[in-house]
Amino acid sequence: MRESYDEYLKILNDNLLDYLPPVDPKSSTLYDAMKYSLTAGGKRLRPVLLMASCEFAGGKAEKALPYACAMEYIHTYSLIHDDLPCMDDDDLRRGKPTNHKVYGVGMATLAGDGLLNSAFEVMSKNLFMNFDDPDELKRHINAMYIITKAAGITGMVAGQVSDIESEHTECSEEMLEYIHRNKTGALLVGSVKAGLVLGGADKEMLDDMTVYAENLGLAYQIRDDLLDVLGSAEEMGKNSGADAQHEKVTYVSLNGVENSEKKLKELTQEAVNVIEKYYDNAEFFRNLILKLSERTK
Amino acid sequence: MRESYDEYLKILNDNLLDYLPPVDPKSSTLYDAMKYSLTAGGKRLRPVLLMASCEFAGGKAEKALPYACAMEYIHTYSLIHDDLPCMDDDDLRRGKPTNHKVYGVGMATLAGDGLLNSAFEVMSKNLFMNFDDPDELKRHINAMYIITKAAGITGMVAGQVSDIESEHTECSEEMLEYIHRNKTGALLVGSVKAGLVLGGADKEMLDDMTVYAENLGLAYQIRDDLLDVLGSAEEMGKNSGADAQHEKVTYVSLNGVENSEKKLKELTQEAVNVIEKYYDNAEFFRNLILKLSERTK
Repeated sequence: MRESYDEYLKILNDNLLDYLPPVDPKSSTLYDAMKYSLTAGGKRLRPVLLMASCEFAGGKAEKALPYACAMEYIHTYSLIHDDLPCMDDDDLRRGKPTNHKVYGVGMATLAGDGLLNSAFEVMSKNLFMNFDDPDELKRHINAMYIITKAAGITGMVAGQVSDIESEHTECSEEMLEYIHRNKTGALLVGSVKAGLVLGGADKEMLDDMTVYAENLGLAYQIRDDLLDVLGSAEEMGKNSGADAQHEKVTYVSLNGVENSEKKLKELTQEAVNVIEKYYDNAEFFRNLILKLSERTK
Repeated sequence: MRESYDEYLKILNDNLLDYLPPVDPKSSTLYDAMKYSLTAGGKRLRPVLLMASCEFAGGKAEKALPYACAMEYIHTYSLIHDDLPCMDDDDLRRGKPTNHKVYGVGMATLAGDGLLNSAFEVMSKNLFMNFDDPDELKRHINAMYIITKAAGITGMVAGQVSDIESEHTECSEEMLEYIHRNKTGALLVGSVKAGLVLGGADKEMLDDMTVYAENLGLAYQIRDDLLDVLGSAEEMGKNSGADAQHEKVTYVSLNGVENSEKKLKELTQEAVNVIEKYYDNAEFFRNLILKLSERTK
């Protein structure tokens, strides 16, 4: 498999817009709005995980590319809708005005809807390309189904619902973990699973990497919460202290900075341990979680 | 094929909620919000068209049921998002308060997102059930792809975009037809095509029925516009004159009542003519468009 994050990132960035369905000139504003958020400088963590997981299991990243693009469309739609006035009401995202600040709330809502639809259009279309090999086709259908479940009402949407419902309420640590596991974790775990399935992973590898991805998701979120308290708006690209402003309970507000840092380390170590048996092959994933758990933006 | 609209309606209504992915008790409000709009008394025109088209082509309605449910989820999501304050800002839909009036704008946005995701989850899952018969599987993949295109950025979403962009502007008849063809027409045509493909229709039948469905879509919209001018809030289940309030150009505001009624008749007649060669088999579709073009609510 490829060695560096940037190699996967490049494949994704070179193809992300090309995989969008062709847009009618009459819908140029919609396209602009979708493109605005797609190219606003995200880390591309989910699509990179998806392609790297495919190669980890023995497949080629290119095979996973349509699903990687679809995953980034889904992630981007969720950010656009999350930022809306009716949800988190954020003005800044990745250092830039949020989608609805630039295109208006109606167009931003439709840009999100358009991205979600496009994700499924890309995946459905891709099935035709793999129709003549039943084993391969089954992997592709499986990957698509994994992604729909991760994004849907038992995955990410459930997390978003619990997130807005728990604002201004006492939120237990159990509920908080539920929110994180679904809102952030579902797409991360879904990306890893979809990639593994496409690459032909066995059950043991799927189980191991699911633990890895779950820990990565929670560690990522705790680091995010820590940065919200410790970071500055400039470093984070969004307004620091936004969680406190929204009276949002975070892992840090529940457990304090010190305990959160400890939990972050434990989760990271556990993830590193579970993939230890894959030796050098797992180096990409080892480096990734170590880097993410120490990131400063 | 079955003879009456109500027979198809019953199959749909008996299954519509059961096909939703199982919801976590923590997301019960989301489920309630989705269910509220799904059971608010729609005509079920799209899923009925889908199942009837499948039987018209020689298939069984039951085979088309997952796609019929998915289509109704997609239609319902589009209504919920259309009614949002950032879009049409409607308080009433089918005689009941709109989703965001009951559940709040954030939850309504997520209920829409949840329904759209569920549509794709249902269709993806259904592919596994048909995996062992390649010909059958190809029909199912094709139906799913037709539905994703009809719902997406070159279909319904494009129509919604043009619709909000054309508010408060001079809107040509050409643009108005573009909006209708996409916003309302795309899902109606997509329903017919998906059903036909599932039933194994040949190209001639697909072409004929596409003309039928396109005319049905436009005729339906003109009738809607006429009722908005002529009807009462009680009859329509939404605020009459809403289009004028939104300064929305409609077929009727552009061409007057008399010309609109004439166009409605022409479209209906053309649709009836194009399916004439199917004799008695087309009676369902003949009756349907005649009934819809004269409907009073």
